[in-house]
Amino acid sequence: MINISIIGTGNVAYHLSNACLNNKEINLNQLYGRKNKLPVKFNQSINYTSDLGSLKPFDLCLICVSDDQIEHISNKIKAEPYSIILHCSGSTSINALNQHSNFGVFYPVQTFSVGKKIDFNKIPIAIESNSKKNLKKIKDFACLLSKKVIEANSEQRQSIHLAAVFASNFTNYMRIIADEILENNNIDTKVLDPLSEETAEKLKFLNPKDAQTGPALRNDIKTMKKHLNLLKGSSHQKIYKIISSGIIKLKK
Amino acid sequence: MINISIIGTGNVAYHLSNACLNNKEINLNQLYGRKNKLPVKFNQSINYTSDLGSLKPFDLCLICVSDDQIEHISNKIKAEPYSIILHCSGSTSINALNQHSNFGVFYPVQTFSVGKKIDFNKIPIAIESNSKKNLKKIKDFACLLSKKVIEANSEQRQSIHLAAVFASNFTNYMRIIADEILENNNIDTKVLDPLSEETAEKLKFLNPKDAQTGPALRNDIKTMKKHLNLLKGSSHQKIYKIISSGIIKLKK
Repeated sequence: MINISIIGTGNVAYHLSNACLNNKEINLNQLYGRKNKLPVKFNQSINYTSDLGSLKPFDLCLICVSDDQIEHISNKIKAEPYSIILHCSGSTSINALNQHSNFGVFYPVQTFSVGKKIDFNKIPIAIESNSKKNLKKIKDFACLLSKKVIEANSEQRQSIHLAAVFASNFTNYMRIIADEILENNNIDTKVLDPLSEETAEKLKFLNPKDAQTGPALRNDIKTMKKHLNLLKGSSHQKIYKIISSGIIKLKK
Repeated sequence: MINISIIGTGNVAYHLSNACLNNKEINLNQLYGRKNKLPVKFNQSINYTSDLGSLKPFDLCLICVSDDQIEHISNKIKAEPYSIILHCSGSTSINALNQHSNFGVFYPVQTFSVGKKIDFNKIPIAIESNSKKNLKKIKDFACLLSKKVIEANSEQRQSIHLAAVFASNFTNYMRIIADEILENNNIDTKVLDPLSEETAEKLKFLNPKDAQTGPALRNDIKTMKKHLNLLKGSSHQKIYKIISSGIIKLKK
């Protein structure tokens, strides 16, 4: 049985706590947050504390707070000689934790929202540690939660995080723009759902370069001009131009 | 039984011909293409012709060619007094076909690639016609193939097409950039597959504005600076900046 503490009450902490609760080989020791009470979205059987000094001994402590708080909070955590301190950030160096003896990173390559359940088992987890011995312990824990555990150093992890911003955050923003265009023309945005789904689904079968379609790829100047005209006066016109230029270059 | 002719041998013609072949109430009369032979990807039982003048009488003729060829090709098609000529383009006005007596539009809001099967039944079809009588016929046909038939005039259809470019073509390009970043750092691009899938999956449950996450939404300047630094010298830096600016504005 592995004893786990989780620091934070955000989306990552929420989904991670649920995954731990659902695993018989993991004991979710405690969860720390700044608020007086455990937020209602969490399973209320969790042992909650708002006092970092009162953390019970743990094997692994997973820090799931915003990047700029990681170092500050980790400095306040008292660890036993066998305990390992981990952060869950894609873009923060492992060295943010080097005031501890045993430390590492547990970065789930996924987008988390509270309103959406997720199968933790399928989430790639990028792990890193300050020693081989600790890496093995972190790997054993990560493998309890996910089938896709990979080792990545801080530099590689930063690349994964940057790539994830394009593949997820920016992708989602494309749909925000798309919905805005439809709403401005009184068209139900649901008309795009099968398209969004298929655009992602395709990537299971095709390389994204082979999956690319659309007026920019065909260098269909007439259609692109029509689109730019429809976007006149909108800040999205610039985005349309710059992304289309990138796609046009793919063929060269 | 509805007699259908299809003009074109591209991705739309390919998937549409398969959908017609699989429907007992539709007879795929003939398929026209410029090549001497029916391309091998097509079901070889299809009656193929490379001579537009020899088209057999049809109820509906679906023109699935590139936008700039629609008017030119439709001028060459001989229609019976009862026949309806349709194009399948999102961005072309219905008027491209107004040399005919009966005409309309059948626009499937989807992205088609040859290497990827698709359930036509789930594809929203935006239809338009030059008369109520023809619209009914087009609707009856479209409803045989899809559960999601909507009426849209040429202006609305253009908006749907523009929105689809953001939701699909630009979204796919975001994954191309993401994969490029990983490849440059010797990381298997498959690590992003669950993320791409979940990013689309979320949209079934959440409005994209509620689903938005990432450093730009948090206005996490430190992380964005790190990312811009990683993209130094790459043409993707500009795309990162402009999309992040858009996301930052969402909170205001």
